[in-house]
Amino acid sequence: MTMRKRDPEVLIPAMLDGDRIALARLITMVENRTAATASIMSRVYAKCGHALTVGITGPPGAGKSTITSCLIQHLRDDGKSVGVVAIDPSSPFSGGSVLGDRIRMQKHFLDPEVFIRSVSTRGTHGGLARCGRDVARLFDAFGKDVVVIETVGVGQTELDIMEVADTVAVVLVPESGDTVQVMKAGLLEIADVFVVNKADRDGALRMRTELEMMLSLKTNTGEGTWRVPVLMSQASKAEGTMEILEACLAHGEVCRSAEASENRARRLRDEVLEICEEEIMRRLRAGADSGAIAELLKSVGSGDVDPYRGALDILEDADLLAKALRCNDA
Amino acid sequence: MTMRKRDPEVLIPAMLDGDRIALARLITMVENRTAATASIMSRVYAKCGHALTVGITGPPGAGKSTITSCLIQHLRDDGKSVGVVAIDPSSPFSGGSVLGDRIRMQKHFLDPEVFIRSVSTRGTHGGLARCGRDVARLFDAFGKDVVVIETVGVGQTELDIMEVADTVAVVLVPESGDTVQVMKAGLLEIADVFVVNKADRDGALRMRTELEMMLSLKTNTGEGTWRVPVLMSQASKAEGTMEILEACLAHGEVCRSAEASENRARRLRDEVLEICEEEIMRRLRAGADSGAIAELLKSVGSGDVDPYRGALDILEDADLLAKALRCNDA
Repeated sequence: MTMRKRDPEVLIPAMLDGDRIALARLITMVENRTAATASIMSRVYAKCGHALTVGITGPPGAGKSTITSCLIQHLRDDGKSVGVVAIDPSSPFSGGSVLGDRIRMQKHFLDPEVFIRSVSTRGTHGGLARCGRDVARLFDAFGKDVVVIETVGVGQTELDIMEVADTVAVVLVPESGDTVQVMKAGLLEIADVFVVNKADRDGALRMRTELEMMLSLKTNTGEGTWRVPVLMSQASKAEGTMEILEACLAHGEVCRSAEASENRARRLRDEVLEICEEEIMRRLRAGADSGAIAELLKSVGSGDVDPYRGALDILEDADLLAKALRCNDA
Repeated sequence: MTMRKRDPEVLIPAMLDGDRIALARLITMVENRTAATASIMSRVYAKCGHALTVGITGPPGAGKSTITSCLIQHLRDDGKSVGVVAIDPSSPFSGGSVLGDRIRMQKHFLDPEVFIRSVSTRGTHGGLARCGRDVARLFDAFGKDVVVIETVGVGQTELDIMEVADTVAVVLVPESGDTVQVMKAGLLEIADVFVVNKADRDGALRMRTELEMMLSLKTNTGEGTWRVPVLMSQASKAEGTMEILEACLAHGEVCRSAEASENRARRLRDEVLEICEEEIMRRLRAGADSGAIAELLKSVGSGDVDPYRGALDILEDADLLAKALRCNDA
């Protein structure tokens, strides 16, 4: 029985057949980045493509979780099923993740058509981004109509995660800083929809004007006819949130038909290398606890060898490297 | 002559001898993550350890650049030399970085004892974090008394960069959101000094009280006797910024003497694997444009093979993988 619980051969068909528990177990396997991750994802990949994936990003405190909760409500009122991936960069020290998002979304917990999952990964660069994408795809393959990916901050990880989204809504508040900060964080390029939340506060109108001005200067990146709107909302009162959803759905339609095939091909090729990289890192770390590499790491830890020299010693020794990467167990 | 300009054998001794141009060239080589990066860093590593490295992080718009500018001023008034690494996550689309930080720090540009460098890297996960650390170490080896690393946002990349800092100051503003957001961003664990900037605004005192309460609940992580202070500032008027510097210097003294050797050894071992990973990624990408891997990527790009299957095909073919990783040219 324990075997079957973790056997993708059993779980994948069950999940594709609508079994929520199988879905939850697969998500856990993918979240733990087990050795089976890539083969699970390869098997469900063909079932992806139905869901519209909406990314919600912006600085901490902008009200992303509250907006997500409103979007869920509107989608449910319309009879749509929803999957939510709440990206939760767990703190490197405590090892735990904070359930703020879940607290804000708790009213949807009992709805069987809403599946909310907080995702966190520690240890590997890029692991969180890849994990978030994979979970979004599992929701898609499961048959959700809309998948919402909500991030916590606005760093590189968040930008990477947003690559999987069809539509990205960037949520700001009047206090998010001037628009130079928005540019610095790379948000201008990824936003398909801008939202100025807490629009009753001072500076909301000015922020909208500034954003619209910057958008008018933006070079057309060839995404067809989409014009990025700047919407105002007060999500805590559910004001303006229906307009956010409508804009996201409208953009989703436009971008899906318009995405240049060359752009799509490039993203797919990049993904192959990213998946390779993640697996190579996993093997390297799995193999670091024994043998010659462990010896080398020990002398770096004691200060006898500097970390750069230690890395070069591994890389320059083809046998050592090959042995490290052949380590195939999870 | 062109050869010599890029020859680490010439540049490294010149840099260690105080040549600013050699330093700038080495930084450029490290920033471009050339194949020579690890060997450059290995050669300068032994010269590191003099500088106190202070990380300044926090959400966009909190006033980090303004605070950094004040810290530079105070350090210069005290006769200390300063290196500044401004981490600038360039946007993935435009390919350029925004010079907001430099604008704010321009009054220090003509001071030969202040070296300000914006650092940005595209393309590889974790590359920006590693790059920021390496540049900070180059400043250290060059002989700077204090190195300030300033980030833009509060994502995983920023948390990773902060690992190299002796002391981390987290800058918030009353509008940064509630303290749950601070916890979610992982800031509580990395902060050695909290700063509530723009302290004249509503909610500043409440934010300080909340932070102090959360700090009092924090489990002691064994960093000796340091008690994380919550300071108030108005950096635009240079009010409270001297206290920030004093707190950072005081923490630097405490943490350097107190850091448990086991913790240090663990960090060094982790670094070896990170450096290996970055170089393996570089080789993988350099080798992806030709041969069997290029063929495979083409069929993924055209949609014939899913990206996960494509990655597994590379990983399961030991010869293909070995060939990809042997590609050693920059």
